[in-house]
Amino acid sequence: MSLKNFQLADFFEQGERFVNSGLKRLLPPSSTKPKKLHEAIRYSIFAGGKRLRPLLCLAAAEACRGTWERALPLACAVECIHTYSLIHDDLPAMDDDDLRRGKPTNHKVYGEAMAILAGDALQTCAFEMTAGCEATARYGHQAFVQELARAAGSRQLVAGQAADLEAEGEALSRSELQFIHERKTSALLRCSVRLGGMSADCPPRELDALTEFGSRVGLAFQVIDDILDVTQSTETLGKTAGKDESSQKATYPSVVGLEPSQAIARRLTDAAFKALGAFPKRRVIALRSLAEHLLERDR
Amino acid sequence: MSLKNFQLADFFEQGERFVNSGLKRLLPPSSTKPKKLHEAIRYSIFAGGKRLRPLLCLAAAEACRGTWERALPLACAVECIHTYSLIHDDLPAMDDDDLRRGKPTNHKVYGEAMAILAGDALQTCAFEMTAGCEATARYGHQAFVQELARAAGSRQLVAGQAADLEAEGEALSRSELQFIHERKTSALLRCSVRLGGMSADCPPRELDALTEFGSRVGLAFQVIDDILDVTQSTETLGKTAGKDESSQKATYPSVVGLEPSQAIARRLTDAAFKALGAFPKRRVIALRSLAEHLLERDR
Repeated sequence: MSLKNFQLADFFEQGERFVNSGLKRLLPPSSTKPKKLHEAIRYSIFAGGKRLRPLLCLAAAEACRGTWERALPLACAVECIHTYSLIHDDLPAMDDDDLRRGKPTNHKVYGEAMAILAGDALQTCAFEMTAGCEATARYGHQAFVQELARAAGSRQLVAGQAADLEAEGEALSRSELQFIHERKTSALLRCSVRLGGMSADCPPRELDALTEFGSRVGLAFQVIDDILDVTQSTETLGKTAGKDESSQKATYPSVVGLEPSQAIARRLTDAAFKALGAFPKRRVIALRSLAEHLLERDR
Repeated sequence: MSLKNFQLADFFEQGERFVNSGLKRLLPPSSTKPKKLHEAIRYSIFAGGKRLRPLLCLAAAEACRGTWERALPLACAVECIHTYSLIHDDLPAMDDDDLRRGKPTNHKVYGEAMAILAGDALQTCAFEMTAGCEATARYGHQAFVQELARAAGSRQLVAGQAADLEAEGEALSRSELQFIHERKTSALLRCSVRLGGMSADCPPRELDALTEFGSRVGLAFQVIDDILDVTQSTETLGKTAGKDESSQKATYPSVVGLEPSQAIARRLTDAAFKALGAFPKRRVIALRSLAEHLLERDR
C-alpha cells in the first residue's frame, strides 16, 4: 500500500477479517467433542479483541516484503497465547475479573474449571499453529517455536504475571515495575513483530530493528493501559476501570505520576519510530500507524 | 542390554536419574526471577513422580536403535506436560486435591494463582524442550512439535479432562468412559513412545507398532488407576484413595465392575505385547518390562 492511500481503518478492518478467518479455520470447530470446551475456547477468542498482536505480526511481515498469508499461522498463534493468558488472568484466584472486552469473562460463562482448561488448550493450539507455518531459508520450525516459547514462558510472559501477582500491595521502584511490564506485555508484542519478520525471511538487521520497535511499542502499550485504567470509565474500557488501584497494583501512574507516565509513553513511541528507520518508509506505513494509534487510543 | 541381565529396577533407577538430570538442566534454575514461580515449577516436577512417560520414551528410542541422549528433550517434554496437567487438575476448581505423590499439592504450598501460572509455564517449557531436540532424516521439528501439541491439545489430553469434568455424577456407557480414558491418559502415553521412536528416526512400520503399543498400554494404565483407587489406601497411593467414588467419577470398576476391569487391563496389555512383535525381542526388553510392571503395580 502506498503512503497516499493508506488508511489505518482499512488496515484494521481487512487485517481483523483476515485474522478472524484464520482463527476460525485453524481452531477446532465448536462442534468438536467435548463441545463445551470448544465453545469456551471460541467464546474468548471471538469476544471482540482488538487483534493488536496479530496486526503487528502482519504489518511486520509487510515491512520485510513478506505476505499476510505466510504470517497468518503465527499471527493466530500469538492471539491464542494472548487470549489464554487473559482467561487465566481473569480467574477468581488471579485478578478475579467479571468483565473482559465488555463481555462476561470466560469463567463467568463456563465455570472456573472449564476456563482453566480452555486457557490450557489455547496455549497448546498456539504451538500447533506455529508448527504449521512455512519454514523459510533462514528460519526453520525450531526457530519459530522457540521464539514463541521464550516470549510466552516463565522468563517472559508468565514471569511478568507472577511478578505482578507478588507485587500486589508492595511499593515498587520504577525498575521493578519495568521488569513486570516488559515481561507481562512487551515480550509478546515484540515476539509478534519478530515472528512477522521471520515469516518473511527477514535478514538479521531487519529482525534487530523489529526487536527494538516491538520492545518500545510493547512497553508504551502497557504504560498507556495503566494510564487508561486511571483516566477512563468501565464503559469506555469494556473492563472494570480503577481495578489497578482497588487491587493495589503497581502502575506507572502510581509509581511515577500521571503526566510523567504520558511523557514516558511518548518517548518510548519516538524510540519505536526511530527503529523503523531501518526500513524504507513505504514498507512500514502500517507498523508506524499502529504505533501512533496505540498512543491515541482511549480504551 | 541383553535379555539375561536386564533388570527392570536398574532400568528404572538409571532412567529416572537420567531424566531427572535432564529436567534439572532444561528447566530454568529455581533462582530465576521471579523465584517463587520457578520454585513452584520445580516443586511439582521433583515431587517424586514415577517418570513413567519419560521412561517409555527412552525405552521406545531403544526399541528403534536410538539413544537416550537424543530422546531426552522429548522425554522431559512429556513429563512437563504431565506435571502441568496434574497441577491444574488438583486445583480447587478442578479435582480439589490436597495430596499428590504423598506431598501437598502445588496450590497448597504456593497458592492457587501461582499454581495456575506454574502449570502454564510448564506447558510452555514442554514446547521449548521439544523444539530443542535434534531433527532426524525422517522427522523435523515440525513433526515433533505437532506430535506433542496434538496429544496435549483440546482433542486429546484436555478433551479427556473436560469430558471427565462434565461426566461427574452422570451415568456413563463403557464407550463414553473409554472416550475419556483414551484422551485423559492414553494419548500422552502413546505420544511418549511415538516421540521416543521418532527421535531414533524409526521407519513408519515401527512407528505404527509403537502407536498400537502406546494406545493399549495407555488405556490399561488408566483402567488400573481406576482399580487401585477402589482397592488401595491413601497411604499406599500417595494420593487420596476412594476419591473417584466420593466425587462420583465414572470409572471402569463403577461402569463394568471390578473383575471385568481387571480382565480388560489384562487384555489390553496382551494386545500391547503383541504390537511389540514388530521388533526383535532384545530391543524391546525395557518396553515389555515396563508394560508388565504397569499391570502389577499397587500404587
